[in-house]
Amino acid sequence: MSLGIYYYPEHWDKSEWEGDIKNIAEIGFEFIHIAEFSWIDMEPSEGVYIFEWLDEVIALASKYNLKVILGTPTSITPVWMGIKYPEIYLMNADYQRQEHGTRDQQSLSNPIWKRFTKKIVTKLGERYGNNPTVIGWQIDNEPWAKPDFSPSSQEAFKKWLETKYETIENLNNAWGASFWNQTYSSFSEIKIPNAKLVGWWGINPHSLLDLKRYSADTQADFLDFQAEILRPLISKNQYITTNYTATNQSADPRRTKKLDFNSFTSYPNKGNANIGDLGFRLGDPKELSFAFSFYAPENHTSGIMELQPGYVNWGGINSLLLPGTVRMWLYHCFGGNLSFACSYRYRQINYGAEQYHSGIVKLDGLTLSQGGKEYKQVIEEMEMLRKAYNPKAEIPKKIKERKTALLWNYDNTWSMAQQGQTNQWNTLQFFQKYLEIVKSFGAPADIIYENDDLSKYKVVIAPAFELVDNALIDKWKNYVKQGGNLVLTLRTGVKDRNGHIFSAGWGEKIYSLINAEIENFDQLLPSTKGTIEGLKNEYFWNNWADLIVPNNPKNVLATYTNQFYAGKAAVVTHKIGKGTVTYIGVDTDDALLEKDVLRSVYFQANITTENYPEGVYVQWRDGFWVAVNYASEDYELKLPVKTNLLIGTKILKPGGVCVWTE
Amino acid sequence: MSLGIYYYPEHWDKSEWEGDIKNIAEIGFEFIHIAEFSWIDMEPSEGVYIFEWLDEVIALASKYNLKVILGTPTSITPVWMGIKYPEIYLMNADYQRQEHGTRDQQSLSNPIWKRFTKKIVTKLGERYGNNPTVIGWQIDNEPWAKPDFSPSSQEAFKKWLETKYETIENLNNAWGASFWNQTYSSFSEIKIPNAKLVGWWGINPHSLLDLKRYSADTQADFLDFQAEILRPLISKNQYITTNYTATNQSADPRRTKKLDFNSFTSYPNKGNANIGDLGFRLGDPKELSFAFSFYAPENHTSGIMELQPGYVNWGGINSLLLPGTVRMWLYHCFGGNLSFACSYRYRQINYGAEQYHSGIVKLDGLTLSQGGKEYKQVIEEMEMLRKAYNPKAEIPKKIKERKTALLWNYDNTWSMAQQGQTNQWNTLQFFQKYLEIVKSFGAPADIIYENDDLSKYKVVIAPAFELVDNALIDKWKNYVKQGGNLVLTLRTGVKDRNGHIFSAGWGEKIYSLINAEIENFDQLLPSTKGTIEGLKNEYFWNNWADLIVPNNPKNVLATYTNQFYAGKAAVVTHKIGKGTVTYIGVDTDDALLEKDVLRSVYFQANITTENYPEGVYVQWRDGFWVAVNYASEDYELKLPVKTNLLIGTKILKPGGVCVWTE
Amino acid sequence: MSLGIYYYPEHWDKSEWEGDIKNIAEIGFEFIHIAEFSWIDMEPSEGVYIFEWLDEVIALASKYNLKVILGTPTSITPVWMGIKYPEIYLMNADYQRQEHGTRDQQSLSNPIWKRFTKKIVTKLGERYGNNPTVIGWQIDNEPWAKPDFSPSSQEAFKKWLETKYETIENLNNAWGASFWNQTYSSFSEIKIPNAKLVGWWGINPHSLLDLKRYSADTQADFLDFQAEILRPLISKNQYITTNYTATNQSADPRRTKKLDFNSFTSYPNKGNANIGDLGFRLGDPKELSFAFSFYAPENHTSGIMELQPGYVNWGGINSLLLPGTVRMWLYHCFGGNLSFACSYRYRQINYGAEQYHSGIVKLDGLTLSQGGKEYKQVIEEMEMLRKAYNPKAEIPKKIKERKTALLWNYDNTWSMAQQGQTNQWNTLQFFQKYLEIVKSFGAPADIIYENDDLSKYKVVIAPAFELVDNALIDKWKNYVKQGGNLVLTLRTGVKDRNGHIFSAGWGEKIYSLINAEIENFDQLLPSTKGTIEGLKNEYFWNNWADLIVPNNPKNVLATYTNQFYAGKAAVVTHKIGKGTVTYIGVDTDDALLEKDVLRSVYFQANITTENYPEGVYVQWRDGFWVAVNYASEDYELKLPVKTNLLIGTKILKPGGVCVWTE
Repeated sequence: MSLGIYYYPEHWDKSEWEGDIKNIAEIGFEFIHIAEFSWIDMEPSEGVYIFEWLDEVIALASKYNLKVILGTPTSITPVWMGIKYPEIYLMNADYQRQEHGTRDQQSLSNPIWKRFTKKIVTKLGERYGNNPTVIGWQIDNEPWAKPDFSPSSQEAFKKWLETKYETIENLNNAWGASFWNQTYSSFSEIKIPNAKLVGWWGINPHSLLDLKRYSADTQADFLDFQAEILRPLISKNQYITTNYTATNQSADPRRTKKLDFNSFTSYPNKGNANIGDLGFRLGDPKELSFAFSFYAPENHTSGIMELQPGYVNWGGINSLLLPGTVRMWLYHCFGGNLSFACSYRYRQINYGAEQYHSGIVKLDGLTLSQGGKEYKQVIEEMEMLRKAYNPKAEIPKKIKERKTALLWNYDNTWSMAQQGQTNQWNTLQFFQKYLEIVKSFGAPADIIYENDDLSKYKVVIAPAFELVDNALIDKWKNYVKQGGNLVLTLRTGVKDRNGHIFSAGWGEKIYSLINAEIENFDQLLPSTKGTIEGLKNEYFWNNWADLIVPNNPKNVLATYTNQFYAGKAAVVTHKIGKGTVTYIGVDTDDALLEKDVLRSVYFQANITTENYPEGVYVQWRDGFWVAVNYASEDYELKLPVKTNLLIGTKILKPGGVCVWTE
Repeated sequence: MSLGIYYYPEHWDKSEWEGDIKNIAEIGFEFIHIAEFSWIDMEPSEGVYIFEWLDEVIALASKYNLKVILGTPTSITPVWMGIKYPEIYLMNADYQRQEHGTRDQQSLSNPIWKRFTKKIVTKLGERYGNNPTVIGWQIDNEPWAKPDFSPSSQEAFKKWLETKYETIENLNNAWGASFWNQTYSSFSEIKIPNAKLVGWWGINPHSLLDLKRYSADTQADFLDFQAEILRPLISKNQYITTNYTATNQSADPRRTKKLDFNSFTSYPNKGNANIGDLGFRLGDPKELSFAFSFYAPENHTSGIMELQPGYVNWGGINSLLLPGTVRMWLYHCFGGNLSFACSYRYRQINYGAEQYHSGIVKLDGLTLSQGGKEYKQVIEEMEMLRKAYNPKAEIPKKIKERKTALLWNYDNTWSMAQQGQTNQWNTLQFFQKYLEIVKSFGAPADIIYENDDLSKYKVVIAPAFELVDNALIDKWKNYVKQGGNLVLTLRTGVKDRNGHIFSAGWGEKIYSLINAEIENFDQLLPSTKGTIEGLKNEYFWNNWADLIVPNNPKNVLATYTNQFYAGKAAVVTHKIGKGTVTYIGVDTDDALLEKDVLRSVYFQANITTENYPEGVYVQWRDGFWVAVNYASEDYELKLPVKTNLLIGTKILKPGGVCVWTE
Repeated sequence: MSLGIYYYPEHWDKSEWEGDIKNIAEIGFEFIHIAEFSWIDMEPSEGVYIFEWLDEVIALASKYNLKVILGTPTSITPVWMGIKYPEIYLMNADYQRQEHGTRDQQSLSNPIWKRFTKKIVTKLGERYGNNPTVIGWQIDNEPWAKPDFSPSSQEAFKKWLETKYETIENLNNAWGASFWNQTYSSFSEIKIPNAKLVGWWGINPHSLLDLKRYSADTQADFLDFQAEILRPLISKNQYITTNYTATNQSADPRRTKKLDFNSFTSYPNKGNANIGDLGFRLGDPKELSFAFSFYAPENHTSGIMELQPGYVNWGGINSLLLPGTVRMWLYHCFGGNLSFACSYRYRQINYGAEQYHSGIVKLDGLTLSQGGKEYKQVIEEMEMLRKAYNPKAEIPKKIKERKTALLWNYDNTWSMAQQGQTNQWNTLQFFQKYLEIVKSFGAPADIIYENDDLSKYKVVIAPAFELVDNALIDKWKNYVKQGGNLVLTLRTGVKDRNGHIFSAGWGEKIYSLINAEIENFDQLLPSTKGTIEGLKNEYFWNNWADLIVPNNPKNVLATYTNQFYAGKAAVVTHKIGKGTVTYIGVDTDDALLEKDVLRSVYFQANITTENYPEGVYVQWRDGFWVAVNYASEDYELKLPVKTNLLIGTKILKPGGVCVWTE
């Protein structure tokens, strides 16, 4: 894992560049990340390009043996552009044109905007595509598929729909337009659905789902558009990537086709309480945990492009991190199989919206911040680990057997965001609950898409996988027949690809998989307690409960014990061919039921599991075992006798790290 | 009470219509309600009308002996209309034109909109006005008097004002325009008052009151406009109605002049906690309770056009109903003297904004939902009750004597909504507190308007009846002199019809009625406890307290016992002629004081009272006693020995029903 | 202190004027305040002026020996003006033009608006500038420096920037425009920063700071513009003032140059809980307390133009005041060294937005309200005090020695409002915490600006005085060297005048003053407890903590005792020359630490202190000692033996007053 850092030469006087870059190299960083917000410095007025400053910075990097990741500057426009061509800005749901002064305000479907993008990206590609110091390109910044209500987006949306549906009848069917008189005669009659104006309760959910897809496609096309410009201009030694925010819910990283890999950004400490007394200093592990599984499942290259270096400026509170926290995050990333970890930013800036955002060095431009010291320490430790690296190390059998897949499709989150059915519903959190259980078992977890190969995994979980079709149901069935262990949950399989509930029993598509029927589903007030018994324990719920009627009473793992339907099943399991299907029809706040059910699935499948407490992660990578602790209490690792401790001790303190080989 | 159901042929393939309608008839429904959201199906492009599908559906209904209520489709516009004539949409307070995609977005004062309305309603009247299967017309849907800031509404508002005030001087006086320099020289200078733009604290409250009146008049005129078109085209056997939401606060059902009667819609379970542990499944009884008294007081025909059939899709949570709940609601409606009870909707739809809204049959289009089963049961029970019906049954004396009127005027709610004076104020809830006390006494309660005849009632209550004039005060005085028992409360009689506080003592208009003066009024923090003693009890308040100085200390029923004005009266009573006036100057959260005071009023007037707990309702109708229980505990009815139990037992379980004759 | 009252002849029939004015005189008021909202009555249509009514009112005042303060009517426009010239209205951040119907909606930079202003003010000056009954002019009403996004304001903002920065490079530097690509090529490219559209987290904080300054300058210029028109037209016996809301955070009273003095308005009871059980009736003392120190520091004339006369209409709740409260406020004002106290308003109006706002007389126009009675009582008592007045009385030595200055600059509040760094931050409340400690010591406190003379004060406090330059640091240093005792706090001295954090150690500018370094700052969750020991006590914090590293450990007054940095200093003190600097790096909710530290500063400087509890104020003015009590418990004053009690007793009840001479 190589380490790099964001540097903004445009923020400092030219006279300071060499000192800064020299210092970056001396700390031990291997690359710098530059230029993603500097269009005005490259093209101060229309058609006038200035790159000498950038040449100089790259030359300085080269001088100090630093590599460079170069950003394309399309996430902010120079002020002159919006004055001359206001249509480059997107419109919000009030049909207000956005204005100069912040990021992510462009209309990605606008032809003038794309023309300018093409010119600047071409210039950059031509100039630096074969510069040996430049190792890679980051396109745009933190892609965000914002809905855009501007005229150019309205036109693009209609075209997108026409391409998708071909006839307006198809669209009317897909959108269920006969409900509330919404039928269209032609694509030209369509406007982008405006939930703010129309009201969330009355808006057509299928058109909103298409708006999300269109926006994600538009975002992905814009990234591919840039990649296509760059590709013929750059060396094969340079890669193209972009940096999604780790758990963003709008831009879908798998929609692009022209990038080499996806990277991500993460700020684990957002000013929340998190785990235990020290949690507000240690951050929330779940964002990085998700990102490793999502961006770097088996065979996928990924890296973290921005990792929080200390306190930030945008939390509700912005506390100091517990010393050691940044280092712990870096080891969490290392264990998470990332190729690089880059941080935002080298120098704390002393002006602008982020002047309170910490950097690797403090406001004086010299003194290492606490995060800076920890980066330096990790860089040194990485040297040591590289020496300890055994290229022949093979993944331990118990780890390999535990490999688990969780199925993800943005369609599900988009659909359920509009129709949550209870205020307590949060699709991402529901998904993360299952992901974290898997990780607490010490199992590697890959978040994969439905078309990916399932056969590599002994356990596959499809949490609230709402939108399905027959092909997918068949694929699941085959997976199970051949020995897979499939876990389905409430809200899995209840809608078709347009977001229509199937005209059948609730969830009927999966009845043959689970050998049971789902009579109905219920919700309680957040203050109430539904009770469940099974697996020798009692559990509590109030968010969502499917009332399951099993065909075979022996398949019941857990049963409701209060409410008027006491006795109905909450969890069932069923064998098909060589495998099993387990259906978890209830959602608990503390995840205890889900954990016990999953453990039984692994146990039945002869897979061993660990039982790490919340906040403790133990990962295996390239022969190294890497443990970190986000909890506020010490955790004692159970290490084998022949352990070779490389870093830390078996007592993991809060914020602690331990690396060993076995 | 006849039972019917909403059916949407346009949501299903034509091939399914006959099966659906046959099934509806077999369940036992007597009529279907159709077509209120189907303009696009009737007029797919301007001037092109297609009614064959509707002919066919009505013919199918006829074939299966179902009657039809036909909706006029004016609550949603076809998309082509807004594209060609955007002025048909209303503007919100941001002057944004509404858009296609939901309901209730038309500018009711717009001439183009009215022209289209006239054409479609004429077509419908011509085609179905003498169809014997069609028994009635529902105009529009859930009328809602939205403020409309569009140019056509601006013009209409000015005209409305000119008609009302004749001279601008009159308007300036009525609006108190000399406050803050708001004086107008001509009607042309006026804009619709925009509280969003101007800010609630500075907006002229009198102009806002007129805006509410104008909006309600415009809404009523639009309904009458349609009724006037229909009337000459339809048979005398067809009635014209519309369906207000039960407790809507904007559209005034008594403002129309051309409809035969008013019906209403109600969804008792909105995802709130309600009464006791099971309240979230049983719903809140207060909405139906209000509706019976408001829409169906003596001699008024009414029916419930939409009654919730099960869980809905738009609550904060959408729980399953306790089995029996829909049946209980239906018996509540039956006891409430309704002529019909219709439910929304037959089939649960599997797409659109309401795809999670339950129906009488489930998503498969066949299986009865829990609500469907209960509808079926009630239909069968109704057959039995019709047989048990004794046309000679007379209202029991004790019931007749208890008949109580509560006075309602939308002006009061509109005025106090703008000037609540404490965050805790809610006019509707204040009114419902008194209404529910009356019902707990087993008294029939009619919500009537001030011009209605009071002499039929031994007790008349005017809760927070803010706007009065001398004629009304005189009417009240005469009512009391002739033996009536009048209950007035805080905020009764303090303002004139323009919403000006009288330039006199606070509430001085009623001093002669109550034989006391009101020195001032006070409010406490919600966390504090004001104490009161009287009627042998102690009570607590913090919302509103009038400080009453009685002319005769013997008239005092309750007295403040803390705060700096301890010793001032909170409740007084006074005899005038043969009757009494009781003034309740304080507002308690638990209503215990108000209940004790009211009971003493009935007692003094030799009227017996029951003491039903919260959630239990016992009503008498056409010889039947009908009891229902919305509470979470059993309730044992005290039935006379010679009771003839028709349905249920004397132990009312939660959600339980009992019907008997005596 | 003379007493006056607002009167609105335009609200009442002409026939009532003389009676009202006679009654005002008989109550004992010395002046009336009129005409500030009556433009439409002066100029009912463009260019048509009518002043006869005003002549008459002033003549009536003269007849009854009342003086007159005359308002210029520019805070509300007549309706015809906005219809003919819509550009006189400002635009909000949605670029919506404001509308007729409330106050403060004008575009102060608009030339048409200024032309109308000039005409009306000229007319008034010409007509009443030498009227002996008129003693003063109030320009506009409650000046409020609203951001204005209209085209005329956009132009004015650019000009303001050009005047300030001269070159666009200077602006780019000051605004840190190189952050996020915001660099401008010319002033014409600039728009007013729109945080609503751009989003608070991304908006440029330096441009926002300039917007605040521009808005305050524009407001001040508008007041000066009117004063300049009036000055040549009026007698030297007439003064010019305006009435700021006491703690307004947008309009800076020291920015005007042409007014004679500043007055203010205050409504101490806004419906909050305040101090103790009775606090919701007694009001919050901190607003008046701030106002006396801010508007009437030594040698500054000031008065309160509007003092709440009873309950208001705009609180969340609007309770009755405890009898005596208005009188207490008046004595608080008297002790606060005000020249006059005027109240809004004489008659409670019975219509309009403020019809529930109490007046000196009630709705009947005759009966004194509770507040009216108390005004009358105070007027009579003032007569008595004037007789007891000893013109030779000198300020007692112990009071004089305690005189404390607190430094104020609007720039600090504006800067920290945008970058609070924790949700718990509130600059005004932070400042008031220090102010109230000083007052609890019985010390006169002057809120002064940084250019004012510090040498008059033994103690100077600069709470969170964020923006500094070298000159100010030097001024502070000199003050201390010559014997001053300077108290600095967290967030003092960390930014330059543009709002850039200094590129140095955090707060490094003051290191030489405090003889310590500030390593970092921390914030805790609001639910957590940071602990501190020092000054023989334990304290708790969670809002903000500077981690201080002293050069001399003996200088430490308080030390953190938990968190990972336990042992770091929280408070240090340091001697320079004849004086001391004390640095308080932590912010506690209960102010106990700050109080103990400040007491030690006074003690070290040989200044005596009192220890008044919260809500008790004892002030000395013109020979009189004046004590008031806003708390809910009695307080016993420790009076010397030779006390001459003039009003009240030494037991101060809640709402009580005591005046004595020694």
